[in-house]
Amino acid sequence: MIRTVEQYLESLRDGRVIYCLGEKVKDVTAHPILRRNVKEGAMDWVVTNDPQRRDLFVTKNETGEEVHFTWTMPKTVDDLLHRRRVHLEGCRYGGSGLHAMGADAIAAARILADKQDKKLGTHYTERMESYIKYIQRDDLGLNLAMTDVKGDRSVHPSKQIQHQDFFVRVVDRQKDGIVVRGAKYHISMTTSANEMIVMPSRNHAEADKDYAVYFATPLNAKGITLICTEPEIRSLYKEETAWDYPDCAMTGPYFGEAMVVFDDVFVPWERVFMCGEWQFTRDAAYLFSAYHRLFAATRMIISLEDLTGLAALMAEYNGLEKYSHVRDKLAWLVQLTESVKALSEAACKSPEQEPDSDIIFPNKMLINIAKSMYAENFHEATKHAQDICGGIVVDPPTYKDWANPELKPYLDKYLAGKAGVPTEHRLRAIRLLKDVTGWQHGAHEIHGEGSLAAQKMMIYTAADFERYKAGAKRTAGIPGWEKDPYFGSVPDDEPLLESKMPPVDTTYKI
Amino acid sequence: MIRTVEQYLESLRDGRVIYCLGEKVKDVTAHPILRRNVKEGAMDWVVTNDPQRRDLFVTKNETGEEVHFTWTMPKTVDDLLHRRRVHLEGCRYGGSGLHAMGADAIAAARILADKQDKKLGTHYTERMESYIKYIQRDDLGLNLAMTDVKGDRSVHPSKQIQHQDFFVRVVDRQKDGIVVRGAKYHISMTTSANEMIVMPSRNHAEADKDYAVYFATPLNAKGITLICTEPEIRSLYKEETAWDYPDCAMTGPYFGEAMVVFDDVFVPWERVFMCGEWQFTRDAAYLFSAYHRLFAATRMIISLEDLTGLAALMAEYNGLEKYSHVRDKLAWLVQLTESVKALSEAACKSPEQEPDSDIIFPNKMLINIAKSMYAENFHEATKHAQDICGGIVVDPPTYKDWANPELKPYLDKYLAGKAGVPTEHRLRAIRLLKDVTGWQHGAHEIHGEGSLAAQKMMIYTAADFERYKAGAKRTAGIPGWEKDPYFGSVPDDEPLLESKMPPVDTTYKI
Amino acid sequence: MIRTVEQYLESLRDGRVIYCLGEKVKDVTAHPILRRNVKEGAMDWVVTNDPQRRDLFVTKNETGEEVHFTWTMPKTVDDLLHRRRVHLEGCRYGGSGLHAMGADAIAAARILADKQDKKLGTHYTERMESYIKYIQRDDLGLNLAMTDVKGDRSVHPSKQIQHQDFFVRVVDRQKDGIVVRGAKYHISMTTSANEMIVMPSRNHAEADKDYAVYFATPLNAKGITLICTEPEIRSLYKEETAWDYPDCAMTGPYFGEAMVVFDDVFVPWERVFMCGEWQFTRDAAYLFSAYHRLFAATRMIISLEDLTGLAALMAEYNGLEKYSHVRDKLAWLVQLTESVKALSEAACKSPEQEPDSDIIFPNKMLINIAKSMYAENFHEATKHAQDICGGIVVDPPTYKDWANPELKPYLDKYLAGKAGVPTEHRLRAIRLLKDVTGWQHGAHEIHGEGSLAAQKMMIYTAADFERYKAGAKRTAGIPGWEKDPYFGSVPDDEPLLESKMPPVDTTYKI
Amino acid sequence: MIRTVEQYLESLRDGRVIYCLGEKVKDVTAHPILRRNVKEGAMDWVVTNDPQRRDLFVTKNETGEEVHFTWTMPKTVDDLLHRRRVHLEGCRYGGSGLHAMGADAIAAARILADKQDKKLGTHYTERMESYIKYIQRDDLGLNLAMTDVKGDRSVHPSKQIQHQDFFVRVVDRQKDGIVVRGAKYHISMTTSANEMIVMPSRNHAEADKDYAVYFATPLNAKGITLICTEPEIRSLYKEETAWDYPDCAMTGPYFGEAMVVFDDVFVPWERVFMCGEWQFTRDAAYLFSAYHRLFAATRMIISLEDLTGLAALMAEYNGLEKYSHVRDKLAWLVQLTESVKALSEAACKSPEQEPDSDIIFPNKMLINIAKSMYAENFHEATKHAQDICGGIVVDPPTYKDWANPELKPYLDKYLAGKAGVPTEHRLRAIRLLKDVTGWQHGAHEIHGEGSLAAQKMMIYTAADFERYKAGAKRTAGIPGWEKDPYFGSVPDDEPLLESKMPPVDTTYKI
Repeated sequence: MIRTVEQYLESLRDGRVIYCLGEKVKDVTAHPILRRNVKEGAMDWVVTNDPQRRDLFVTKNETGEEVHFTWTMPKTVDDLLHRRRVHLEGCRYGGSGLHAMGADAIAAARILADKQDKKLGTHYTERMESYIKYIQRDDLGLNLAMTDVKGDRSVHPSKQIQHQDFFVRVVDRQKDGIVVRGAKYHISMTTSANEMIVMPSRNHAEADKDYAVYFATPLNAKGITLICTEPEIRSLYKEETAWDYPDCAMTGPYFGEAMVVFDDVFVPWERVFMCGEWQFTRDAAYLFSAYHRLFAATRMIISLEDLTGLAALMAEYNGLEKYSHVRDKLAWLVQLTESVKALSEAACKSPEQEPDSDIIFPNKMLINIAKSMYAENFHEATKHAQDICGGIVVDPPTYKDWANPELKPYLDKYLAGKAGVPTEHRLRAIRLLKDVTGWQHGAHEIHGEGSLAAQKMMIYTAADFERYKAGAKRTAGIPGWEKDPYFGSVPDDEPLLESKMPPVDTTYKI
Repeated sequence: MIRTVEQYLESLRDGRVIYCLGEKVKDVTAHPILRRNVKEGAMDWVVTNDPQRRDLFVTKNETGEEVHFTWTMPKTVDDLLHRRRVHLEGCRYGGSGLHAMGADAIAAARILADKQDKKLGTHYTERMESYIKYIQRDDLGLNLAMTDVKGDRSVHPSKQIQHQDFFVRVVDRQKDGIVVRGAKYHISMTTSANEMIVMPSRNHAEADKDYAVYFATPLNAKGITLICTEPEIRSLYKEETAWDYPDCAMTGPYFGEAMVVFDDVFVPWERVFMCGEWQFTRDAAYLFSAYHRLFAATRMIISLEDLTGLAALMAEYNGLEKYSHVRDKLAWLVQLTESVKALSEAACKSPEQEPDSDIIFPNKMLINIAKSMYAENFHEATKHAQDICGGIVVDPPTYKDWANPELKPYLDKYLAGKAGVPTEHRLRAIRLLKDVTGWQHGAHEIHGEGSLAAQKMMIYTAADFERYKAGAKRTAGIPGWEKDPYFGSVPDDEPLLESKMPPVDTTYKI
Repeated sequence: MIRTVEQYLESLRDGRVIYCLGEKVKDVTAHPILRRNVKEGAMDWVVTNDPQRRDLFVTKNETGEEVHFTWTMPKTVDDLLHRRRVHLEGCRYGGSGLHAMGADAIAAARILADKQDKKLGTHYTERMESYIKYIQRDDLGLNLAMTDVKGDRSVHPSKQIQHQDFFVRVVDRQKDGIVVRGAKYHISMTTSANEMIVMPSRNHAEADKDYAVYFATPLNAKGITLICTEPEIRSLYKEETAWDYPDCAMTGPYFGEAMVVFDDVFVPWERVFMCGEWQFTRDAAYLFSAYHRLFAATRMIISLEDLTGLAALMAEYNGLEKYSHVRDKLAWLVQLTESVKALSEAACKSPEQEPDSDIIFPNKMLINIAKSMYAENFHEATKHAQDICGGIVVDPPTYKDWANPELKPYLDKYLAGKAGVPTEHRLRAIRLLKDVTGWQHGAHEIHGEGSLAAQKMMIYTAADFERYKAGAKRTAGIPGWEKDPYFGSVPDDEPLLESKMPPVDTTYKI
Repeated sequence: MIRTVEQYLESLRDGRVIYCLGEKVKDVTAHPILRRNVKEGAMDWVVTNDPQRRDLFVTKNETGEEVHFTWTMPKTVDDLLHRRRVHLEGCRYGGSGLHAMGADAIAAARILADKQDKKLGTHYTERMESYIKYIQRDDLGLNLAMTDVKGDRSVHPSKQIQHQDFFVRVVDRQKDGIVVRGAKYHISMTTSANEMIVMPSRNHAEADKDYAVYFATPLNAKGITLICTEPEIRSLYKEETAWDYPDCAMTGPYFGEAMVVFDDVFVPWERVFMCGEWQFTRDAAYLFSAYHRLFAATRMIISLEDLTGLAALMAEYNGLEKYSHVRDKLAWLVQLTESVKALSEAACKSPEQEPDSDIIFPNKMLINIAKSMYAENFHEATKHAQDICGGIVVDPPTYKDWANPELKPYLDKYLAGKAGVPTEHRLRAIRLLKDVTGWQHGAHEIHGEGSLAAQKMMIYTAADFERYKAGAKRTAGIPGWEKDPYFGSVPDDEPLLESKMPPVDTTYKI
């Protein structure tokens, strides 16, 4: 089934316990901050209901039912490339979150079920198949809870001193299901998901087997409390910030991030996909992350394309396109952007699979490199973009300044760049660059008290290159250093010494 | 004279035209956002009026009058080191801004006056002396306007297409003074200064001599409009954000940054220190920046000490202190911190001066290196600190979450780190780290979809080191590669070929 | 035709004028230094004559004749991937040079011929087809001369002051052919090639159209003088250096690099593929480099695999495998290795082609990124490998030391690493690492006077982390800094100041 | 006493057992390779005997005797700065090695003697005083042996599997002295020193107390075998290499590096400065390295000045001085050079000392940072210098090529750079750059198959910046993306979705 947007929105009014900035939320769809994340979620139903894009996002399952493409298991390179395109286009439309990490966790769990069953004689495959059918039939939106709160990082879960709940664990095994306790942190899309997959965040040893638990749960289950993260800018929901934060304004408080508390939550057996099988926790992490890094490295393409585009735009608007050091920086940004793009595609084209399984997943090495290349270089990338933009990336005017008719003429006149570019365009580009590269502090640290380029030029100018050159000439035996005040005075004792040395003994076999 | 805090505060109610978020400001000292910057300014009078700190901040001028130390010209290494200490302690107390860039511009102008008079027979030295006495007598707070709005960066000021006001210039020379027009950007401490020094932001050629203008003006002069930058977080002035943004909450909207518009402002001749002497614009920039990079590199020490301290604290709170890669990162942070510290001190110990001048300034090379080292590495430094902190630096709970009695027990229990560390302490450290290193976006890019360390580990694990080693062994002639599926099958044709080659001709003189 | 090894060797005794270390060379195949490069060339005939490898290296042309695969034009992705595999395997066998740059220049010239003919009505296509048939029929080995000696880099070829021959140019156009003059630098495989393709090294403007010249010539043509580069180590050809320089010993004086002087050399029209068509010089560079970067990025895979393998081997031999900072470095090396591998493959999978042409070439963006990623990071890679190896990479014993029965017991005993690893194996790995990562000077700069790790540890130990932490605590509002000697004494004036400030005016619309 | 050069040279003919390239050495002063290192040593006596430089290098001890300055203990900042100048000038004259590491080890041992005596009641101070007087009186040249061969790095000395001699240790305590066994590696100036100080290379625990041994020994002591490292280029001693390797030709096989084997060597008690006091091994390392990093960071100044000078020279010779990316690289090199210089000076100006000791040593933190900054960045520095130099750094012609009258005209004509620069000067600069930055392999990896700059330019050119810009414009709300083939087709569903959302609930307290 493919639900309508209205059906999806209605489904979120399910009594879930949710807090934002310390206040209890009555209806997420109307909440001034959280509705932005709801819109991100809802976008998935906008696209699936658009006849022109149905081919990409919707497919048919074995029984001929229309289902979202990500609820099917990838079995060919084309499936993986299709999945990558679904992520890519979904993200560009501002959605995709409810068919990303949850879908990745399901694919991983499906492979894992098979492995467990074969090795231990369990019956997880059947459960998984049935759960996937349920998701497909009801067209639910899923998210995923993996990261535990961890406590002391150097101590195993069951050895933690304050309590043993730093990792989600099974505290009771009952006839109909299990009872879980713990807390998961920075769980994306929590506000707008229907159900959540919960999985272990690390590999556990046998002593910690109660922490080896993998399950699904509706978000309104008794005992679940959702504590949302704060918004990036508290008044972003107001009209008056119009183009101030174009990126933040599109996503919810950072992708609907929340802390999820499990205060003895009951989970029926049919939604439990691992319970004590500690031997498979390592595989769980590997399999999930192989899929999920693909989503990451796809989302990051958009982030990098925007950043590279903005830097190129600012080089143009500022009249800097001809300078070779600016071109060097732009080439560097392109290199990063296109590498992540190519590596994520290469990971799909060289997939892996478990023995005896027909489900494939992206190449673990390549997909991890794609993401690592991005994360390692992102800060450097923002530095280059901020450098090209100039100091105004720290403190551009706001929409409220622009909207004031007394100030607008000043801003319009003075903040213009290259002739022919409307000042408003330049300001919008700067606002977006500020929004995606940073925060005032960081950018200020580059530009405050003079730009990076200013220091470089001062260092270049303050350098006594003639002296450096004289030294080099002397060492290389090039004339021209003799009149240098210092090097000209360094005596050449070599000849004197040579005359005191015995002659070379040439009988050695060298 | 040394004014009281009250006198200083009263002096800001002078009718200046100032806007914040598009709204006209009635009284800066009471404005919810700008008063934070006023407090930064006022702190300079708190310290000078404290008997225990008077020795550091207050000195006597030639006529025996008590004056702020920065209004005296440095003539010895000790003077420069004292100036550095005034900046350092002033910044630690949360002040110093009104005796930094303005004082730096005055020292530069004073040296410049001498140079101009000697070369051109002008009488600037007299004017400067008189202006300095006035500042000392009235104990004013000064800031400095240097950066012009610039327009197209590849075009000279008088050749800009839209208009010729992208750099501040003299539009009229009258009997009693001059009339200036233009706009300066990201001018710090504008909200809280009494007067402002205005100077050229680049070296100008003769064709642009109207842009060679250096002067002082009160901030309430007719024709000046101040457009303040937005606050980092719009509701920071509210109690409810208590420990959410400890760094931002201390400074005004980034150091009182503003755009300053000069709409045909009159400046009397006694406050004009350069007017058309384009030959000296290059010197103006060099001299000012030598002093001002010292302030920068001093303020940055505090920034780096905090950052390194926070990273060390989080390593401790998270239980990560023993890991060698964490130690590597901490050592790197220490190296950066202590280098900037040592280089800024070294710049004072190897000062420079103009011929025939007894006023000294920090070593241009060293002080620029100090600042450049900071700015080039700051983004990398934040990456390391965020890496050690963990993903929670993206989305820590807010004070409002903590203040809610229903949520606090959950947060207290689950967000604990190493045993013995109160959760509130850990959260406060994380909030400060978030505040100084970044914005959610940037930190998220490191941690989203799995930490950097997670990818590194995956790459390490996915690597077929046996195969890499086999290849290396084969090349190095070490046995052990023969059974490698690939390298074992690469044939060794060398011997076969050697037998076909003619023997070596040993008659060459090699 | 596929020649025998003997036929190939014989073909090099063709009277070419060649110098090595200032001495004229009589027979390259017997020259103590140059014969190493001859062996590199000859290896291409060893592999093509080996029945087991013929499928990879030999194909059939349109007329059913057996020819080396690289003499055919790639028209499908599989062709490009096959070409990549030919390069990869050829390099592993220590050959491939005579079917690399020359083959790349031919493919580029073939596409270019078509472009020129269509645009200008020339008849280059016919000539190219005929030249390719000749190469295929006689089974020649080709190299390529591109880089000119350049003179002053900021001056155009025809505007150079000393003379106009810094770039190869046409000095005469005759009935049967042209006469060329100039010199090309660091031309690989010169010693062992049969013919050489010569092409422009930059895009030329109309004023420089005599420099737009692209042709083929035998290396024994009248007027050509070849000046070979020096060997890496002068006595490498002697037995006594056995395992001292395993990498250098395999290749000739760096890949047969030479300076090629054209002292008015005649080239018949049938071997001229461009002569004055300056408009196409840019395309020439782009097309050639698209193919040739593929060869580069393939050869580099082997270089990186060896380097990563050696680093992993040394980590094992030294007993360092468990340390997290060593694992970090190994993961970094793997990331670089596998990225170059994946990007060069991706470049083949997303090929480009000119309009109306059926010949494809590697994706320009991706293949340049592959090579740039390698070149930008190679120095850093050697640093990491040297760091893991330890200081002995600077000064390992030589084979002559090892061969001396008085010294061997000492070396064997003392230079052992982890138990179970023969000392000789460790020494061989170190010798190879020294050979491929560097030179004594560079490695010495890392290890001399104490390793990098030693300084890091000293910095870590010398750091007063308690003081850093105290500062951070104070700023974050965490107790525990009060007893710090410094921070405990920094007063908190904030409350005092707050009491002097007017209350917040809450009427603003913020 | 200050010996003559002749006395020094004679003193080396003392029967020491020394091997070079596997051959036993009869007289080091006449050995074709090792005499270069002897000359390095002898230079110390050339300078001390030169009346004009005596003031710097020679001082008087308490008894009025003339002694080399480094044999006195530093007690003031001026002493440390003087010591730094002695190192600096000594290195510039090509000497200083016999008054560097040995002198550093003596100063460290002297402080340590005091500490040990106070804590344990030993009598080392007396012995040290007496040993220092002996050195002063006989005017000996000393070196230092610290680094052990180590074996498995993860195993303690006495737990090593193969044998327990991987670290030098006491194997017998006799009435008159001790017997030591083991081997030290890469010990500088071994060829040319009179005596050697031997000290522990790491801190040892009580179980390893036999390894806590610190002593002096003449180099001809029975049981000592010296195995010299190979020369950088084997035929360097021949005339025919004239200007080929100006740097290598000045120093011996890398600074006289050798492996020193102790085959049960007897050391009399008067030369034993630690024997079993394992508690002080950590201090030994810290104290020695504080002094020795000062020598390192001084020697490195010269290395960096040469490198920066060469890069600036090549920028000039190649006509590249005006390009902004070349200026960026030069500024980076200057920054590194001047930072190391300033930090090493700062370390002298903020010295440290042990409680109750009047001997000072360089600031541990700063001097380690100085050296670490160099070692961490040296590879990057060589990359920049090689990039500016161009590919010819890989394969410049040799002196033998230049000396051949048939080749010289070609080389002179074609390898010229900017007009006015003799070709020979350019070649000498390139030869020196090759010599100090590297080896052919590494430089080749940057330049082979096209320079770094070439790839950057290709990436820049291949980039579809219009598309990147269109994406950025769309996100920023700037018109101009509507006609982009891709972004123009991405629909804007936002308005549609907004109409389906419930209105904002404005009752929240946000």
